[in-house]
Amino acid sequence: MLNTLEIIKKKRDGEELSAEEISYFIKGFLGEEIADYQMAALLMAIYCKGFSDQETQALTEEMLFSGEVIDFSYLPQMKIDKHSTGGVGDKTSLVIAPIVAAAGLIVPMISGRALGHTGGTLDKLESIPGYRTNLSLTEFRKVVETVGTAIIGQTKEIAPADKQIYSLRDVTATVDSIPLITASIMSKKLAEGLDCLLLDVKCGNGAFMRTLDDARNLAQAMVNVGNRMKKRTAAFITSMDQPLGWAVGNSLEVMEAIETLKDLGGTDFRGLCIELSAMMLYLGKVVKDMEEGQILVRKLISSGSALEKFRQMVEVQGGDPKVVDDFSLLPQARLKTEVLAPSNGYITAIDTLGVGHAAMHLGAGRRRIDSEIDYSVGLQINAKLGDYVEKGQSLCTIFYNDENFLSMTQKRLEATYQIGDEKPPLSVLVKEVIN
Amino acid sequence: MLNTLEIIKKKRDGEELSAEEISYFIKGFLGEEIADYQMAALLMAIYCKGFSDQETQALTEEMLFSGEVIDFSYLPQMKIDKHSTGGVGDKTSLVIAPIVAAAGLIVPMISGRALGHTGGTLDKLESIPGYRTNLSLTEFRKVVETVGTAIIGQTKEIAPADKQIYSLRDVTATVDSIPLITASIMSKKLAEGLDCLLLDVKCGNGAFMRTLDDARNLAQAMVNVGNRMKKRTAAFITSMDQPLGWAVGNSLEVMEAIETLKDLGGTDFRGLCIELSAMMLYLGKVVKDMEEGQILVRKLISSGSALEKFRQMVEVQGGDPKVVDDFSLLPQARLKTEVLAPSNGYITAIDTLGVGHAAMHLGAGRRRIDSEIDYSVGLQINAKLGDYVEKGQSLCTIFYNDENFLSMTQKRLEATYQIGDEKPPLSVLVKEVIN
Repeated sequence: MLNTLEIIKKKRDGEELSAEEISYFIKGFLGEEIADYQMAALLMAIYCKGFSDQETQALTEEMLFSGEVIDFSYLPQMKIDKHSTGGVGDKTSLVIAPIVAAAGLIVPMISGRALGHTGGTLDKLESIPGYRTNLSLTEFRKVVETVGTAIIGQTKEIAPADKQIYSLRDVTATVDSIPLITASIMSKKLAEGLDCLLLDVKCGNGAFMRTLDDARNLAQAMVNVGNRMKKRTAAFITSMDQPLGWAVGNSLEVMEAIETLKDLGGTDFRGLCIELSAMMLYLGKVVKDMEEGQILVRKLISSGSALEKFRQMVEVQGGDPKVVDDFSLLPQARLKTEVLAPSNGYITAIDTLGVGHAAMHLGAGRRRIDSEIDYSVGLQINAKLGDYVEKGQSLCTIFYNDENFLSMTQKRLEATYQIGDEKPPLSVLVKEVIN
Repeated sequence: MLNTLEIIKKKRDGEELSAEEISYFIKGFLGEEIADYQMAALLMAIYCKGFSDQETQALTEEMLFSGEVIDFSYLPQMKIDKHSTGGVGDKTSLVIAPIVAAAGLIVPMISGRALGHTGGTLDKLESIPGYRTNLSLTEFRKVVETVGTAIIGQTKEIAPADKQIYSLRDVTATVDSIPLITASIMSKKLAEGLDCLLLDVKCGNGAFMRTLDDARNLAQAMVNVGNRMKKRTAAFITSMDQPLGWAVGNSLEVMEAIETLKDLGGTDFRGLCIELSAMMLYLGKVVKDMEEGQILVRKLISSGSALEKFRQMVEVQGGDPKVVDDFSLLPQARLKTEVLAPSNGYITAIDTLGVGHAAMHLGAGRRRIDSEIDYSVGLQINAKLGDYVEKGQSLCTIFYNDENFLSMTQKRLEATYQIGDEKPPLSVLVKEVIN
């Protein structure tokens, strides 16, 4: 007979829990027979003693099947999604979803919101006037059928166990546990009814995973769960040692995403979008290798068909598609100012977490889950790692509405840049691919 | 600024908490600003990552000063108590308190109840008709002043933080943590307003501490806290590889205690009472060493003055003092039966936990904190470790009222005895003294 205390003891003593024990515990917690303090004790025991692949797998499945798993099997195309672990300036979903849908795959994307230093895809999209991310699952299915892709927010039907457990992790210092992160991400993603999944694990001073080892462990754990569940799963480990692209902040990031879909600009951001999309086309069996994938992705951009997909998606989700041609329809900050280089030299490091926090303080992000967002504010990153700047040259532009904390934000941003005499080694964006 | 989550994180990551952080957390928990699930997470982190001497000390003081500390400083005599970590047949308090009080020391004893396989001093005393253990602190003080000793139950004024934390430990599998046990015991004992404290840490298959290492760690942790708080503190590590003495069960144990005070019988139990009492007289500076202590203790027994103290205590606490001379006034079980040796041989091992559970199932103990107790039932242990028994000879006598589970209890008890051909090495009762 299963017993709550015995299960906690087993994990506390470093033993492996069976799938039955994990299922009993999660079901008991959702049914309120197991108290939140007992779940908190188990979570801390998992944090301290770890979870095997089998345990992580069992937890993921239990959380996945605590809610609805969308069935897209009536659509003949492969279903694929990409998930990023979160960073600063990461608007890849806005570009990738239309590219991959334009290639004929189905991209049913359920995304998240900004919190702390990280941005959120939903907030970015909601800066487009009229765009609705709170579709019901029925509406979601309809948009996906029509356009091939849709990006919406978490619904209450998807992995309710994850939602309840996450709330508890958040207040018990058990968020940063690789098996718990794995189960949380994978249970939500696998509820989308996917055949394939690409994970973009961010690594560096603006990411949750600071070290390559941690990023690799998380990536491997997620790939293992995906593969065990018969989904073609791969992971990229990509740098978050500087903001991605030039835009940080919601409407600014939408502009950068649209620019990229228009084949304008050639930043690190564009490069990453092409790499990730190519891998998705490979996982989705549209192309036979990454090279062929990159060629096809470039064609989908240059032909305008990816941009057309984006326009369609915006329109069907209630947004104003004219923003694609006229950025002035997007929220605009009233004021802007520059952060200037204090000396000549090369940019040797950027405190990306600091940049993310500065953007959050401007109003681009959320300090707490219930903070309000100002879609118009943000940063334009003018100098990236390895760039040579002269004293007085702009490091970044601040777009703002509230003058109150401006000088503090300026100082804070100036401090995020390290300028040195030696050109630093080239920073590699894609550090590893786990397949 | 102190922060709940940061404190949990610190301990989770194996760092040492400051006294301020521990105080902030306990006070926040009592004040309900810190939720029980956050305390549960911290307790599990303490369980997994440990607590230094300084942290244990800080936790003990915080719990101690969460309630009233009795002030007996107006009494000129040394105040001393003994605490046992709990076992099967451990009725030493009933014998020791009167002996040490008869020697002129003050013994203000706040005791516990039976739970699981272990007995409780309060339940044993309550088997004496009329005996009240629920005295107020004022009544307690009065009995101590009059008799020199009193044995009562936990009151709500004493270490309320311990009570609340213990309830949570009990349901989150965080009971068996040496620093948490230490702080729990020491905060309650030091609230008695003591000058000296003797700890009897039980070790063996009927104890919470199974191994000598664990027992030693607990004993040392408690002695450290006591000494840091300027109390003369010592610890015995004593065997719980068999029931102590011949009686297990409430009124039976009262009989054995009275017999011992009458200088009858010569079991291991009597030996331990003499050793513990002698150490208490040494700690209380009545004698200059253990040898002198043992001589004085034997005199206090043979002269009848210890028995007289016991009689006084019973009377002043509302009990019928005539039980001392007439055991038939104590609750008696209706029926009795024997557990017979299945073969000839030496008793090589006794599963003491099994014996404790068998007694609990008879009704002598509590399965749960709210179970009812039958004071009359219990076991008389007729064969102890190293004894030679013949097939069909009684290993123990079961005193019972309910025939329902008798045959199961008999089988269970038979199984607790291991009988072999070789005489086992002499079992040592006092394994170590930590001073």
